Amino acid sequence: MQGFARRHTVQAALTWLDAQVTRLDAEDVPLRAAGGRVLSSPITSAIDIPGFDRATMDGYAVIAQSTEGATPYNRIPLNVVGDALPGAPFLRQLAPGEAVRIMTGAPMPDGSDAVLPAEFVEACRDGSSTSAEATVDRLDPPTLDQPCGVLALSTVSPGKNVGRRGEDIVAGTTVLEAGRLLRPQDLGVMSSIGLGTARCIRHPRVRLVITGNELLPSGSAPHGFHITDANGPMLAALAERDGAIVDFPGLVRDEADAVLAALQADADIVIVSGGSSVGIEDLAPMLVARHGELAVHGIAMRPSSPTGFGRIGNRLIFLLPGNPVSALCAYDFFAGRAIRGLGGRPAQWPYRAVRARLARKISSPIGRVDYARVRLEDGHVEPLSIAGASVLSSTTRADGFVIVGDDSEGFPAGAEVEVWLYA
Amino acid sequence: MQGFARRHTVQAALTWLDAQVTRLDAEDVPLRAAGGRVLSSPITSAIDIPGFDRATMDGYAVIAQSTEGATPYNRIPLNVVGDALPGAPFLRQLAPGEAVRIMTGAPMPDGSDAVLPAEFVEACRDGSSTSAEATVDRLDPPTLDQPCGVLALSTVSPGKNVGRRGEDIVAGTTVLEAGRLLRPQDLGVMSSIGLGTARCIRHPRVRLVITGNELLPSGSAPHGFHITDANGPMLAALAERDGAIVDFPGLVRDEADAVLAALQADADIVIVSGGSSVGIEDLAPMLVARHGELAVHGIAMRPSSPTGFGRIGNRLIFLLPGNPVSALCAYDFFAGRAIRGLGGRPAQWPYRAVRARLARKISSPIGRVDYARVRLEDGHVEPLSIAGASVLSSTTRADGFVIVGDDSEGFPAGAEVEVWLYA
Repeated sequence: MQGFARRHTVQAALTWLDAQVTRLDAEDVPLRAAGGRVLSSPITSAIDIPGFDRATMDGYAVIAQSTEGATPYNRIPLNVVGDALPGAPFLRQLAPGEAVRIMTGAPMPDGSDAVLPAEFVEACRDGSSTSAEATVDRLDPPTLDQPCGVLALSTVSPGKNVGRRGEDIVAGTTVLEAGRLLRPQDLGVMSSIGLGTARCIRHPRVRLVITGNELLPSGSAPHGFHITDANGPMLAALAERDGAIVDFPGLVRDEADAVLAALQADADIVIVSGGSSVGIEDLAPMLVARHGELAVHGIAMRPSSPTGFGRIGNRLIFLLPGNPVSALCAYDFFAGRAIRGLGGRPAQWPYRAVRARLARKISSPIGRVDYARVRLEDGHVEPLSIAGASVLSSTTRADGFVIVGDDSEGFPAGAEVEVWLYA
Repeated sequence: MQGFARRHTVQAALTWLDAQVTRLDAEDVPLRAAGGRVLSSPITSAIDIPGFDRATMDGYAVIAQSTEGATPYNRIPLNVVGDALPGAPFLRQLAPGEAVRIMTGAPMPDGSDAVLPAEFVEACRDGSSTSAEATVDRLDPPTLDQPCGVLALSTVSPGKNVGRRGEDIVAGTTVLEAGRLLRPQDLGVMSSIGLGTARCIRHPRVRLVITGNELLPSGSAPHGFHITDANGPMLAALAERDGAIVDFPGLVRDEADAVLAALQADADIVIVSGGSSVGIEDLAPMLVARHGELAVHGIAMRPSSPTGFGRIGNRLIFLLPGNPVSALCAYDFFAGRAIRGLGGRPAQWPYRAVRARLARKISSPIGRVDYARVRLEDGHVEPLSIAGASVLSSTTRADGFVIVGDDSEGFPAGAEVEVWLYA
């Protein structure tokens, strides 16, 4: 077993990890930037929305009784005494037989209790009768300072086409619960009740420590026996996807002082890639054990078996293998879960799952969790060769992955399995 | 129907819209910022990855033939002549009977063709024989300048535990296709082949024009007959979710000069909220018709029937109703689709769909598309009251929505329907 005294089960590793993860503290975030953030405490409205009765259709605000008996054959005259626009109410009390031309969203005039929609009204002006629509024309607005009459063609009942004060939100209602991942419309609701900021769990701060003296920084062409870092850009994007703010100042030399300094960075989580096994170059596990707690090292899974994690002070430390597929898998199983947890997000994978049938069997020994990259082809699940944990392109060719639990020997061809889709 | 000469079907509106939408031009994006961006052209590797044969396990690089016949009962001595580490190869040709201690990822020495894993080797030094593991200890490294011997306990076949040059990527392979929404691992692959930037479709630039003289800017407490803008924060978050860069400099007065100036903003898309109907305040449709093309105005759907769109110059203009539920629905049906299309993303909704049974019927007239907010309760679909297009909190209480097509009268209780989940 290459030097691991014993391997933890995935479940045991997760149990330790989940016990370490508690939500971070909160910060105020301007609403404009709060989409996708996690609310730290419930939002209760102090006010009614709307704060007044309002029209829900364009038409004429009336006392409903004024229209009693109106039909196209019994047109009842109404005296139009003014206009009500959104934000510009009609300011005096309405009397029986009067109407106020009103737009959707405008406050209902005092005394009115219904809106007669525009299509049930015929306008009459200068003795002539025309459709009300014809007057609704910005290029030739009616002269509303000169009241004129309309004819109601229909009866309207009290309350009709009126949105009551508080119909959207009644004061005292909790509109959003703590832990909510804020949707665009949530920001709208918060804005409507007068909030300019949202109290949110702060972003976890993640320090990326990419080690390996064979590595060239991203952006360099690989040459000779040097390879270009793949894990830095990948892990940074993964952590950001999961809500982290990533600090990745560059590659770190495989030297004790440099690695230790990085492990003690000002961060909630330190993710180390490379040097996490038990080879002679594997500084990081020794440093974590020496300066903190190396709680887990070696996990019964493939890939990613050399993964470790622990703590130094308040920092959670993840030691990911340098092989990029292992790094991705170990991130998904452990580091990503912790980042999401600290940030108040659900522990579960941010991947969509679909069920489909295997075109070929997947084998896996009892006692080990396998992370099998697969393609979806014509609705069937085609396992990719999983020979190399270093073959990162297998995860770009793959549509997703299938997990084989450690209590399973795998799945026969034709079995329906759950596929977690990368995108 | 309230002044619309005729309403377009949703399908006719989408047909016009889709014909307007072509991908924007490309820009170079640093890999570090390219997660979630859309690739504008395929990526082909100019080089093999890895560029050399490498060990895929820790152990001893050998000529496989040197181990022929080795078993625990027939231990074959090998002369350890040096070390190979990642980035630090063993530099001379290996001879039969020789071994080089090698770490995963290290280049295979010239002449070697297999790696004998560490667990199949017994170290012997100073005449004594100890497990190879014991020597793999950073705190007491073996003095490798003094070659020593090991005993092979097992035969290894040629090629075993060796990753061949090009096993990940062969030069000339297209590793990522144009249009790819870049995943974290894609950035890793691009980095590994030496790329520091990704050529991506640029972000659509969206100007938000929120009109309504009754509105107070987000962050203000509503008072009197003024309400606080909900659509600005909501639409900004929606457009950003779909990949846009949003310019939202503040509310715009319902005045022709102000609205026209905003409609002519330097943007790919202008989204106007409010004043899109046919009321006396509804400037925007008239201005679009006068200064460009008002292609669609009035759509047979609920909510959002007053929605319009068209063009002014190269800008696509969307006229969304001021009612926030209508604005959300019209964004999802039309503006969001255009933003995603310009940015090279799939036209389809970025919502997950699940199928579940209706607890109560949903009715809808033939000839109209309905957007019904629903909750998922105990696996059943509970339609929310959809009385008010102004009741934004219905979309925060809802888990998602069900679409009733214009060829349908709705669904009876118990029918299985597709629910699009907001989150």
